[in-house]
Amino acid sequence: MLTSTPFPKSFASDNHAGVHPAVLTAILEANAGDALPYGGDAWTTAMQDVFRTEFGAHATAHPMFNGTGANVVGLGLVLRAYDAVLCPVTAHINTNECGAAERVLGAKLVTLPTGDGKISVDDLRGQLSVLGDEHHSQPRVVSISQVTECGTCYTADEIAELAEFAHAHNLFLHMDGARLANAAAELGCSLRSLTTDAGVDLLSFGGTKNGAMGAEALVVLRPELNAAAPFLRKQGMQLASKMRFVSAQLTALLTGELWRENAAHANAMAHRLAQGIADLSGVSLRYPVQSNAVFPALPEKAIAELQQRYLFHVWDAAENVVRWVTAFDTTPEHVDTFVADIRLAVQDAVGS
Amino acid sequence: MLTSTPFPKSFASDNHAGVHPAVLTAILEANAGDALPYGGDAWTTAMQDVFRTEFGAHATAHPMFNGTGANVVGLGLVLRAYDAVLCPVTAHINTNECGAAERVLGAKLVTLPTGDGKISVDDLRGQLSVLGDEHHSQPRVVSISQVTECGTCYTADEIAELAEFAHAHNLFLHMDGARLANAAAELGCSLRSLTTDAGVDLLSFGGTKNGAMGAEALVVLRPELNAAAPFLRKQGMQLASKMRFVSAQLTALLTGELWRENAAHANAMAHRLAQGIADLSGVSLRYPVQSNAVFPALPEKAIAELQQRYLFHVWDAAENVVRWVTAFDTTPEHVDTFVADIRLAVQDAVGS
Amino acid sequence: MLTSTPFPKSFASDNHAGVHPAVLTAILEANAGDALPYGGDAWTTAMQDVFRTEFGAHATAHPMFNGTGANVVGLGLVLRAYDAVLCPVTAHINTNECGAAERVLGAKLVTLPTGDGKISVDDLRGQLSVLGDEHHSQPRVVSISQVTECGTCYTADEIAELAEFAHAHNLFLHMDGARLANAAAELGCSLRSLTTDAGVDLLSFGGTKNGAMGAEALVVLRPELNAAAPFLRKQGMQLASKMRFVSAQLTALLTGELWRENAAHANAMAHRLAQGIADLSGVSLRYPVQSNAVFPALPEKAIAELQQRYLFHVWDAAENVVRWVTAFDTTPEHVDTFVADIRLAVQDAVGS
Amino acid sequence: MLTSTPFPKSFASDNHAGVHPAVLTAILEANAGDALPYGGDAWTTAMQDVFRTEFGAHATAHPMFNGTGANVVGLGLVLRAYDAVLCPVTAHINTNECGAAERVLGAKLVTLPTGDGKISVDDLRGQLSVLGDEHHSQPRVVSISQVTECGTCYTADEIAELAEFAHAHNLFLHMDGARLANAAAELGCSLRSLTTDAGVDLLSFGGTKNGAMGAEALVVLRPELNAAAPFLRKQGMQLASKMRFVSAQLTALLTGELWRENAAHANAMAHRLAQGIADLSGVSLRYPVQSNAVFPALPEKAIAELQQRYLFHVWDAAENVVRWVTAFDTTPEHVDTFVADIRLAVQDAVGS
Repeated sequence: MLTSTPFPKSFASDNHAGVHPAVLTAILEANAGDALPYGGDAWTTAMQDVFRTEFGAHATAHPMFNGTGANVVGLGLVLRAYDAVLCPVTAHINTNECGAAERVLGAKLVTLPTGDGKISVDDLRGQLSVLGDEHHSQPRVVSISQVTECGTCYTADEIAELAEFAHAHNLFLHMDGARLANAAAELGCSLRSLTTDAGVDLLSFGGTKNGAMGAEALVVLRPELNAAAPFLRKQGMQLASKMRFVSAQLTALLTGELWRENAAHANAMAHRLAQGIADLSGVSLRYPVQSNAVFPALPEKAIAELQQRYLFHVWDAAENVVRWVTAFDTTPEHVDTFVADIRLAVQDAVGS
Repeated sequence: MLTSTPFPKSFASDNHAGVHPAVLTAILEANAGDALPYGGDAWTTAMQDVFRTEFGAHATAHPMFNGTGANVVGLGLVLRAYDAVLCPVTAHINTNECGAAERVLGAKLVTLPTGDGKISVDDLRGQLSVLGDEHHSQPRVVSISQVTECGTCYTADEIAELAEFAHAHNLFLHMDGARLANAAAELGCSLRSLTTDAGVDLLSFGGTKNGAMGAEALVVLRPELNAAAPFLRKQGMQLASKMRFVSAQLTALLTGELWRENAAHANAMAHRLAQGIADLSGVSLRYPVQSNAVFPALPEKAIAELQQRYLFHVWDAAENVVRWVTAFDTTPEHVDTFVADIRLAVQDAVGS
Repeated sequence: MLTSTPFPKSFASDNHAGVHPAVLTAILEANAGDALPYGGDAWTTAMQDVFRTEFGAHATAHPMFNGTGANVVGLGLVLRAYDAVLCPVTAHINTNECGAAERVLGAKLVTLPTGDGKISVDDLRGQLSVLGDEHHSQPRVVSISQVTECGTCYTADEIAELAEFAHAHNLFLHMDGARLANAAAELGCSLRSLTTDAGVDLLSFGGTKNGAMGAEALVVLRPELNAAAPFLRKQGMQLASKMRFVSAQLTALLTGELWRENAAHANAMAHRLAQGIADLSGVSLRYPVQSNAVFPALPEKAIAELQQRYLFHVWDAAENVVRWVTAFDTTPEHVDTFVADIRLAVQDAVGS
Repeated sequence: MLTSTPFPKSFASDNHAGVHPAVLTAILEANAGDALPYGGDAWTTAMQDVFRTEFGAHATAHPMFNGTGANVVGLGLVLRAYDAVLCPVTAHINTNECGAAERVLGAKLVTLPTGDGKISVDDLRGQLSVLGDEHHSQPRVVSISQVTECGTCYTADEIAELAEFAHAHNLFLHMDGARLANAAAELGCSLRSLTTDAGVDLLSFGGTKNGAMGAEALVVLRPELNAAAPFLRKQGMQLASKMRFVSAQLTALLTGELWRENAAHANAMAHRLAQGIADLSGVSLRYPVQSNAVFPALPEKAIAELQQRYLFHVWDAAENVVRWVTAFDTTPEHVDTFVADIRLAVQDAVGS
């Protein structure tokens, strides 16, 4: 018999979790005989409607298989052959997509130093002196992650400031929103306030880490950028023939704000986890907890001991920082058991 | 309420169909709590096992989201920067993938004329004079489709002859097997006899048209070509984070030869359809029926009338050739009703 | 001591010839102390002026190192990521540039059959049905060679007809003019009448085969296409730092119609050569002589014998067709001696 | 009449200079009738010989049009589709080639911080943890510049240490040697000691800044890497048809160590310039002078005044650092006049 991971509950990533029941139900309901392929089906039409409701009448959503696909196709809508993306050095497109942007788009990524995964207008300013000079890749789009790879969030105002600066210099603003739901849940605001209303032009919207089986979307928030999307999606190997089964997942998450429920719960579990270790001597947080991830520095010995029974990643080996991620299906009991074991391991390590 | 296509049963493509119940069940069963992502799960391990059983101990299967992804990643395993793919001009990689091979791989496709979608050693020979000459893209891999885009099949011997020739000239043989199941069902042979045993090096194995929700696989049949596959899959935006849900689909199709059952049924429906119109004057078949597709030339007026009530594509507008495709869930009643309507439409057109 | 080819005079290609004295003089004169690099120099300004005089006030010339560079950068000005080039299968970009267009531009080349290297509107029409369909690379530009790789010429009217058709369907017209000078000399018309006035949008203008040391130019004939050219040229590794030495060559050829003198002479030599064998039994011309190349079919034995003493290429081994090319420095004596030897070789072969 | 730059002598770049007389003579001598194209000529054979003499019997030189071409083709010899280049953030391939490596090779550049343009083994070590992980571009080659973009030089030992580390981790070492001659002249050693003997695998050898008209070379120092070079050079639009005129330039520079004479002179002029301002208060050098460039910080007002009469670039506007470059034809008088004017401008600015 097939078995899942033997560990009690993974804290390694929110993609270790399975599928939310409502998403599964939506998939089952979509299996209703024939349907037009490639998005010509009723489920994809319905998906467009819920995205428009959420992001505004000018939004167009293109289901994608994964986040790398959404990022690459989205950036491809604005990049000319000789253009560069300005992004924090921590950006997923820079560190975790095996060079897809460079290979598929031929794009240069100009990486900006960052302390907590976020960048500001000041980080961008110095990159614009090359505009118009044929010797240099031309900055064309700013890409930020919300939430960042460090688990931190931009406020709506911070995003708006970046967008305003970008637009003032004829740049576009792209958001890698693999965990946008977690940001909106944390900030207690709408998805729209962090994207459309803040001036984001292109959004990679993440469903998979929020309870989908495998469903992301490129959301084009400026209609004039949309024309090439179908071609780039097909060429980018992201066009699902039986698209209804992807669209149905996205609709399920966006219906009745299931996305918020899932994200808020995951965030709450991360805060519970952080609080559970807040008083522990020998433990400090690298970044503030602003979503469903906790990045504590621990005694090296405690890390080793905990990894024998729990799944999680070391984030910075030199500094003994680890990453703990919670998911829509992480329970308070999972957290409390983990906290108890962490406390023992840390105290053991510190005491020794 | 969401509705599917209003047409009785689509004859446009086998990707208009939904998901086979056994595949859905497998997906549901895979939703069993946490699992390692990116293929580190038990379902992907099981999937590897069934592929090895089917294709031999040296086969390695890499789940992909769609056929274009499988083709591009597979060809990428053997193509150097300056290489060319030799393929029939009808090849899906040439005509229906929006230039993905050129864009993502930078590859040149050298297209060979073909009458029925198949090529032979004679078609290849003339392309080899450029080998070693820096002015020319270097032929590196031969790509064939089984079944072809014309619904025809290569025999195992024909494939072996191509493989032998290719290998003798240091070329590889790639097979786009989006409908390989239909070929094996038609020829009454194993998948292995048409691939591993015939000398195929790289296979794109299709599940989606055979009843899956969305699951293809690149099957690497020569172990020494496999090392780069994980990187090219990730970079090619084909790496599923919750891979178990893709793997489970493939396992379902390969268990108990469900693939053969589905394909044989679809093929039988195509033959039933072809037989139903065999005696019609004014109708002739462009290609022999060797899988689940029928390509008849019809009176133009009959095409117009039938398209008002049935979904199917015109294949060659100049010659009034259409394409009818059957699926795992096409019933004899679907076919018989369609045949009756075709007969009326044709007789009407011929008589007028 | 260094020696050149031991053969009397090469008939293999016009790039076997050296540099015209006027071009060398221009290079020497450009070596006058410091100058701004990358085209900021006076010689490049002067070059722009002569190109404007020749091609019209809206023309902008960009010196390039070789023809492949000019073709790739020029096509890059109009191709989006998912676009295709429509060109005859004989096109240099298809057959002799080692896949540069596919690799550097990611472009698909859709190749059209041709008898004599030329294509017509009828050849293009069938390729437009895919426009707007995301599954297919989108035809974006038609590329023709003038003179063609078969030595034939389009008339100004034929070019205008192609341009009109292209523009009517939102396509661009690119001309690979590696031997445009030879066409204009043969047709007794201006360079402009075959390009700007005929509706050509992008021109690769060849200098090297016309007596330059190494100098081609991309000539952008539609100003609105020009903005990206500096970036694509730099990225395409075609930006000369000491550009004055390339520009000076082009200016030399375009001053006082030296280009026409050189081309007319080369053409005259080809006609002299063709006439010299016109009455020979056992010899026939594959294509009409319309420039500086002759493509005769010869007895196989004669080919073998002639290649022992003369440099030339076999064009079609199956049909025993060879290619003879004359240059600006081919003399009547070179031709007459060659003709005499051909006659002997052929008579010997036929007689035997 | 055509005029060169109106400024007395440019200190902006060594590519503002013209061509050394010996190089011009070599070009003229190569214009001796017909020759085989694409390197099949006697001058290219001779060029190979002088490179072998200089770099060792296993070296193969491929003439290229410019440095970007040499860098891209060279790196292309070792990069697989999913590979990364490790280089200092100041690298010319990163900052000044308009993204050619990303576009043409699809490569990711992983940029390392640097104070003076140089990197060390310690900078590389932290980048290797991603080896073998499909989510990350795989470090494959280390690229260094000699001299660096900051005018500094690696010692032979420093290069050897980088090479040893690279090879120990299955990486290659590439050197952008646009000014390698200046380094060897400065260090008083052979070209070979800084390349072949130090473990460099691939070298971009610069001729243009050393007195050539336009001639660089990719020098492959490991024979097993050489096979693909002809194809990548052609595809990379770097194959000269009349190659003899490029090869002859390189031979001229490598004959009798003309390269060293030119470089040593340029270096001496830079040192003379630096010494001339060494005692000036308000002036400090950003980097040590180790080649033909000087990077002083000056009072802003002095920069403005000097730029009215002299050509040079501002290197760091925020810190008022400028770059002065000398060439093979910079005279002591040029320098002394410049120094006198600098002194006046600085004293004027400081005094005010």
